[in-house]
Formats: sequence, structure tokens, C-alpha cells
Amino acid sequence: METATPSERIWTAALIVIGDEILSGRTQDRNIAQLATWLNVQGIRLAEVRVVADRTDAIAEAVNTLRARNDYLFTTGGIGPTHDDITVDAIAEALGVPVIEHPEARAILEDYYTTRGGVSAARARMARTPEGASLIPNRVSGAPGIRIGNIFIMAGVPHITAGMLDALTGTLEGGRPVVSGTIGCWVGESEVAELLRHAEKTHEGVAIGSYPFFREGRTGANFVVRSPEAAQVDACLRDLTEALEADGRSVIAGGI
Amino acid sequence: METATPSERIWTAALIVIGDEILSGRTQDRNIAQLATWLNVQGIRLAEVRVVADRTDAIAEAVNTLRARNDYLFTTGGIGPTHDDITVDAIAEALGVPVIEHPEARAILEDYYTTRGGVSAARARMARTPEGASLIPNRVSGAPGIRIGNIFIMAGVPHITAGMLDALTGTLEGGRPVVSGTIGCWVGESEVAELLRHAEKTHEGVAIGSYPFFREGRTGANFVVRSPEAAQVDACLRDLTEALEADGRSVIAGGI
Repeated sequence: METATPSERIWTAALIVIGDEILSGRTQDRNIAQLATWLNVQGIRLAEVRVVADRTDAIAEAVNTLRARNDYLFTTGGIGPTHDDITVDAIAEALGVPVIEHPEARAILEDYYTTRGGVSAARARMARTPEGASLIPNRVSGAPGIRIGNIFIMAGVPHITAGMLDALTGTLEGGRPVVSGTIGCWVGESEVAELLRHAEKTHEGVAIGSYPFFREGRTGANFVVRSPEAAQVDACLRDLTEALEADGRSVIAGGI
Repeated sequence: METATPSERIWTAALIVIGDEILSGRTQDRNIAQLATWLNVQGIRLAEVRVVADRTDAIAEAVNTLRARNDYLFTTGGIGPTHDDITVDAIAEALGVPVIEHPEARAILEDYYTTRGGVSAARARMARTPEGASLIPNRVSGAPGIRIGNIFIMAGVPHITAGMLDALTGTLEGGRPVVSGTIGCWVGESEVAELLRHAEKTHEGVAIGSYPFFREGRTGANFVVRSPEAAQVDACLRDLTEALEADGRSVIAGGI
């Protein structure tokens, strides 16, 4: 969490991706990029991510470290009905509160499963929350997400996560969205490294990322300029484009 | 790092993904799944992952925590020629050693860039390593990866990372590869949760993951059984299949 004058305050979030399926390589994570993109629009910066196993101690350690030093903490995964879904219990343990059956969550499940065989013992697990939690609507399937303090406990299946994020849109306090602009160049990034460094130095508050690639048998790079100020992004992109062209490079607006 | 009798020792690795481009959502990470899959074959378990920003303190904190509690630590990203490539400096700071120009790395770059415009100041940055490091061959582009102690510093561009992993194949001590087997079922996982829990309990040393999905308008789930013992995986899959079929479900071997 960085501090600054109120108008410049940077709001940060962390994400804990919970699940052996990510660490085993079986499942390709999609939630890091999805959450990052959503947070950008809320004016919140994704500051750090951890991927942890389905183990209470691993989850609890990450929860207590990351919730303390970020404005918001999100988790994905481990809130289903099966034995490997231990996120609620682990977070309750981290917070030192009991797990309860949440009456509103239970009512949601009763309603959702009326025509789907009823709420079995396994399904009832999805009504359990840490004490003191509120719910995050799930517009895609039955079981809701959970909010407790600054922690947002969400599903792991990306399209269900997306629905929960959609329900949260506009409800979290943030700063100005970070604006970015991209230009591309068929050039090895090492050939223009000094020029990039200079452009970043002369535009305060701007960060320039350099992302090389090899495509169609040629070397290229995209340069991404980021700042909370759209005018600063524009000014930096303009200077960078001029400098690259003065160096004999063709610049492709919007990136390659 | 878990301890066990020599024959059962579990070897663990951690990964630090370094880069603002992952945290901004611009780039979809591919290295977590790639490294996880490669480690499985080496008999090493990916125990935890962190994604950190291009900031020295963030990198150093993660390096010192994760190298201490895992057999191996891998990093991806931030070893190119531009100003945002600070991985080498941050790791040297974490280890309390100076950064030097590595003669062998310099020679590799001289050779690689002979026909590509020579080694500029920016490119020479890629010959810098923490003192005491050895090199990891880069079979795809010029700049090598770096090994220091139990830390493996690798490129962020996935196909270059892949080439470095290929060069390391078979060189790291590990245990028996974890074996897994999958079966699929067109069933809501909550309907078979008790059955899964029972199968895991009655097969010691086996972990069962349950991965639900929604496809072709229907609900289904894959169940993945993991163990270092192939015979245990087979036995558990057999019992689980029987139990599901006794419950009136059709089981699809290999998963859906």
C-alpha cells in the first residue's frame, strides 16, 4: 500500500489463486489476467499474486500477509461442495472467527436447487461462511461469493468469477484508472533501450514497459506507456515516437 | 519443504513470475503451467507461485522467503536489456552479493551479436549476473539464463523459457514423478462429493481433485487422482469408477 496525497492515492489489491490444479499444471489460470483487467477499470492496481496449494496453512499465511498490506484481497478457487474445497475454513482460521451457515446463502441454495434435486449435505457446504461475512451475487450458478472485511472470496471457474466481478463493478472505492497506450516497432528492444530509458526519465509518473517478441521471422517489440494521467501517456507516446523515428525506425501506433 | 524417509522425500520448487505486464493484465502468463508440467516429469512438486511487480523490494522479499523453504526456486521475466529488467540486480541484493559481468555470458553475447550489430551497452546488461553464478544455456536466442545456489533465473518469453527448461532436463535431483489419472462424469460434483471424499480416505497417499465444468449445455466434472505410486492411482481410479457406476453414473476414462 503506497501513501500519497488524497487525490493521488494509489489503491491496491492482491489475489490468491487457490488450487492444486494450477500448481500441477493441469489447469491454465485465467483469473490473474481477468481480475487485473477488471481492477484497472475500478482504479485499483493489482499489486501482487500468490498461487497456493489446497492446504489450510498455505492459504492462511497468504491471507494474513496480503490483506494487511493491500486495500483489497481477492481469492479464487476452493469454494465448491467437495472435500478439496477448504477456502472458507482456511480464511476463517486466518481471521480467528468461526465458520457458520449463512442464512441468506442457505436460502439462495434452497431456491437454486429446488428443481435440481435439493440441498444435499455436500451442497450445504456452499452456504458456509466465516462469521460476519456478506455475500457476493453469483449470476451464473447457485453458490454465492463471500465478502468479509476487505477480503473477496470468489469462485475459481473463470466465467463464474467473471459474473461475481460484474456484480462488484462500481462498488469498490478506487483511484483514477491507470491509462495506457502502446506503440510497436520492428526492432530488437536492445537497440532502443537507451532511448526508452530516457523517455521514461523525462516523463515523471510514467512507466514504460518493453515487451519483445519474435513473429513472422522478425524481431519486434511493443512499448506500453502507463500513467494515471491520460495527458502524460499521450505526451510520452508522442516523444517516444519522435525519438524512434529520428533513429530511423517506423512506429506502429497501437502496437503490433 | 516436507520431510520424509529418503525414499519418500518430496522435492519442492517455487516460482516467482516477475513483471508488471502480468499484473496489469496485458500479458496472460503461460510459465506457471509450463514450469509445473516440466517439474512433474523431474519428480519435483511446484509448491507455490508468486507474481510480483518490477520492483527490487518486492522481488527480494519473495526470493528470500521462497528459496529458504523450497529445494529449488525459479524466476521468469526481467532479464532483458531494457530499463525495466531488474531481476539480476534484485536477486543479487536479496543474496547480498555484487553484480558482475560474467565472462562466459559476455562471450556468448559477443558470438551471438557478431552478425547482429555487436554488443551495445544495453545488450551488455544481459551478461550481468550475481557473483558466483553459472549459466543456463539459451537455445532459442542469445542471452543465457542464470543459476546461483538453488535459484534458476529464466527468461519471461515462454518459448525461450521452454528452451532453458529443456537444457535443464534431467539435471536436477528430484523424487519419483507424481502420477495422475483422470476420469470424467456428466454429473454435478455436489452429487458425488461424499463418494469422492470416501475414495480419497480409503486410498492412503492419494489426492483426488474435483474439477467441475459447464459444457454443451450440461454440467460435468473431471476427477483427477494423484500419487507418486502408479499402482495406487490405478487402484483408486478403479474403486472410484465402480462407486460412480454403482451410483448409476457413466464414467468416461481419461476425462471429458
